[in-house]
Amino acid sequence: MPSVSPSLSAAMSDAANSVTETMQRILPKSDFAEQKLFEAMRYGVLNGGKRLRPFLVLSTAELFGVDEDCALRAAAALECVHCYSLIHDDLPAMDDSELRRGKATAHIEYDEATAILAGDALLTIAFEILADSKTHDDPNVRCALVSCLAKASGANGMVGGQMLDLIAETTQFDIGAITRLQRMKTGELIACGTEMGGLLGKASPQHLASLRAYAHDLGLAFQIIDDLLDAEGTSAETGKPVGRDEKAGKATFVTILGHDRARQQAKLLSEQAIQHLSIFSGRAKNLEDVARFVVDRKA
Amino acid sequence: MPSVSPSLSAAMSDAANSVTETMQRILPKSDFAEQKLFEAMRYGVLNGGKRLRPFLVLSTAELFGVDEDCALRAAAALECVHCYSLIHDDLPAMDDSELRRGKATAHIEYDEATAILAGDALLTIAFEILADSKTHDDPNVRCALVSCLAKASGANGMVGGQMLDLIAETTQFDIGAITRLQRMKTGELIACGTEMGGLLGKASPQHLASLRAYAHDLGLAFQIIDDLLDAEGTSAETGKPVGRDEKAGKATFVTILGHDRARQQAKLLSEQAIQHLSIFSGRAKNLEDVARFVVDRKA
Repeated sequence: MPSVSPSLSAAMSDAANSVTETMQRILPKSDFAEQKLFEAMRYGVLNGGKRLRPFLVLSTAELFGVDEDCALRAAAALECVHCYSLIHDDLPAMDDSELRRGKATAHIEYDEATAILAGDALLTIAFEILADSKTHDDPNVRCALVSCLAKASGANGMVGGQMLDLIAETTQFDIGAITRLQRMKTGELIACGTEMGGLLGKASPQHLASLRAYAHDLGLAFQIIDDLLDAEGTSAETGKPVGRDEKAGKATFVTILGHDRARQQAKLLSEQAIQHLSIFSGRAKNLEDVARFVVDRKA
Repeated sequence: MPSVSPSLSAAMSDAANSVTETMQRILPKSDFAEQKLFEAMRYGVLNGGKRLRPFLVLSTAELFGVDEDCALRAAAALECVHCYSLIHDDLPAMDDSELRRGKATAHIEYDEATAILAGDALLTIAFEILADSKTHDDPNVRCALVSCLAKASGANGMVGGQMLDLIAETTQFDIGAITRLQRMKTGELIACGTEMGGLLGKASPQHLASLRAYAHDLGLAFQIIDDLLDAEGTSAETGKPVGRDEKAGKATFVTILGHDRARQQAKLLSEQAIQHLSIFSGRAKNLEDVARFVVDRKA
């Protein structure tokens, strides 16, 4: 049995191409001396990632009949934030990674200063994209998108989770603290994907709540599998160094729960995520498939 | 003759206190492990700066009768961006500064990773503040504020200017390139101060254009004086290391124009800035005084 349904695989690949194209179009170009910065920004976003977060925006927006160009802009903004976070995470002072998806990380390809600035500029442009009237006619929606992305990626979201992740290298975290860390570090931005799709479509509070519940379970399942891939995978499969958490003596879902229970837990969360979609009476096929995909993926 | 009029000095100090108070109130607190991040964010903003940019927001907003709490929130957002940029600029990979306004820089006081993340979080929260309905009733205004700040601080503004500044260390820039660099690096964010004040007050296009022209002249005058202070001042006066540009062999307004012409040029720009305010028929007293202040300041 293939780990990803052929239709999901095609849909994800289509979405990834469209989002990449959108980012290519939106990101600035220059003939002036600062073009190195613009190149580093492009290098950071054109990295052949799965584009999971944009896919969540697009799939959710589709449920509410949102114009595709609008959804693509919001998806591109979210992906800019995800990519900035990878650039900064890879820096020598942070995870000190030289390899990301089989390619040199930004500070290796360029230099550290350029990588810091490219990350800063990607974070900044995300909000410029969202505030632009091309993203949605209704300024209330645009403000809600800005707010959603800022909260998910800020001190109480992704950046706070990054801080916790650094602290976890020297402090022993229990399962509750690890869950909170991962919810902040990756879960909030994943949840932001479905929430932005719902906001674009002016979804009802009930729909938004279901999407949020779905995305939080999905995010946690995603992270548990990430830990498993780090513990079990090979560098060739995952495109990044593996076994780092264990070497660093860092607590993860896998070190605390063990491999089997961690995998069981991820499956359970995936099934629970799908149940939260029942409000859409089977119309949220892509989102259901993604929940299966994140626990079956090999990279 | 005192270099700053007593009334401007009092007004600037009042504004600085109010903005600092507002940032204190808005910035997140935590009892969890990530509190180190929140402390570093506060450390980065509570640095006793002149709060020039917030003062421009407040003084401009006042011209249009904007509610003070709204103006203070916008001013706080702008200052968060300014302070994030200082934290990142001071990093070892960038300017490698250990001292800022007589105090240890963020990466010295904490560590490099925390400083990077605190900067990221300050940039992010700025947009969260602006998108919040407490900043303005009208979502169109909030979107315009987000847009204005993102453009001024992004790849075509401050971050692009930072990149140029790094390139200027190894490439000889002429006066045109230096002017463009400085307009991007500091000018855009200063102009953003008056523009945000105008946007909050739904200023007419003519008023906005005059404010922009004022701020661009002001920003350039400000930077020329900065270069002069770096070349002439002492560390005790300016609270940061001096003479660095000359040592680095970097072209500045002072190395290209010489001290006297640089000072003349700054004065000319200051007078020109004040002329752009004639549209306000003398009501823009604070803004006029600021234009005099930036060329007379000693730090």
